[in-house]
Amino acid sequence: MGGVKLYGSPMSTCTARVLLCLEEVGAEYELVPVSTLTGEQKSPAHLARNPFGQIPALEDGDLVLFESRAISRYVLRKYQASGADLLKEENFAESALVDVWLEAESQQYNPAIQPIIFQFFVVPKRFGVSPDQAIIDSSLEKLKKVLEVYEVRLSKSKYLAGDFFSLADLSHFPYTKYFMATPYASVFESYPHVKAWWDDITSRPAFKKVAASMHGS
Amino acid sequence: MGGVKLYGSPMSTCTARVLLCLEEVGAEYELVPVSTLTGEQKSPAHLARNPFGQIPALEDGDLVLFESRAISRYVLRKYQASGADLLKEENFAESALVDVWLEAESQQYNPAIQPIIFQFFVVPKRFGVSPDQAIIDSSLEKLKKVLEVYEVRLSKSKYLAGDFFSLADLSHFPYTKYFMATPYASVFESYPHVKAWWDDITSRPAFKKVAASMHGS
Repeated sequence: MGGVKLYGSPMSTCTARVLLCLEEVGAEYELVPVSTLTGEQKSPAHLARNPFGQIPALEDGDLVLFESRAISRYVLRKYQASGADLLKEENFAESALVDVWLEAESQQYNPAIQPIIFQFFVVPKRFGVSPDQAIIDSSLEKLKKVLEVYEVRLSKSKYLAGDFFSLADLSHFPYTKYFMATPYASVFESYPHVKAWWDDITSRPAFKKVAASMHGS
Repeated sequence: MGGVKLYGSPMSTCTARVLLCLEEVGAEYELVPVSTLTGEQKSPAHLARNPFGQIPALEDGDLVLFESRAISRYVLRKYQASGADLLKEENFAESALVDVWLEAESQQYNPAIQPIIFQFFVVPKRFGVSPDQAIIDSSLEKLKKVLEVYEVRLSKSKYLAGDFFSLADLSHFPYTKYFMATPYASVFESYPHVKAWWDDITSRPAFKKVAASMHGS
């Protein structure tokens, strides 16, 4: 079984999500750089991999996949035998709770935190203007409401889906990692169980390795 | 095995998504009304089911689930033996393509079509003002770009994930159903393969049944 090819950039949060999965299961893979700085994701070669012109895309023989959460599931299922079981598909209830909290990340957490990262890091660099503080402030309020729910949940179980680490936890890493480099990181101090959860997942070897690669240019 | 309880309203697109799954697999279930018109989704009773205060939520014995796409997966997995196989989990490649196109619905199609439905149907009724035409127009442009990708895809396979009907197709139904009742429905005429796909999935008995219940007050 040869390695898979991941097309993307480690600085992209969606690429980082898949890299974490590949590292957690110890998969053999090649990262093929596709730079969004030069618009390479809209090139014909990449549009053949992902018709929406986004990164990442995964190639495994003839199979070509896009959308980071879909690729993540595939990687975790394919390499389950050789690594961690981060989907818990053998158990109806556990796998359902992984799905619930993965969707919470996608539909609740991500829409709140994404605009903060975009305004703080992307807007000044790409458009040469200051971040829109009103967008940051309203997004922070949304994020706090989500974190209140997470605090209650994480006071009852060590991880989001239960007392086991899963794709639901992993999937929160990329945006949160960037958030922790903003002046708003102290928001997490008000949620001790969330903070303990964050400290726990960031201590995993796979996370340290991917975090280091996210700093590259 | 007793029936499950679904808390929600058939008029809600996310409730309708789960109803379609329950009908497709022929599950025994009870729909317990939770009305968003009276804000019942924020009541303590419902917040105990879904801490984000949204519908639907599903109760199966002690297990309580929220987020419609996560509930859908659970329903389809639990009742797979008795009904249609809409996840294709026995096959790595097929299930991955179901995931890819389910994520496309969630991350590409939904963000384009949702604001149109919100402006056209919800804004006048809830806020007593006219829809914001600029939002509708820019969302229509986004939707057309997504439909262009779908047209290419559906010219190669009968359904989104391949030549089999899956959760990826099903999940598009609720918002598209409402869209077809707007003056913008004719947009679909420019995409013949998408139109044929829509005609196909709406002819399924489960879809006809759920569509009828979406019209209720």
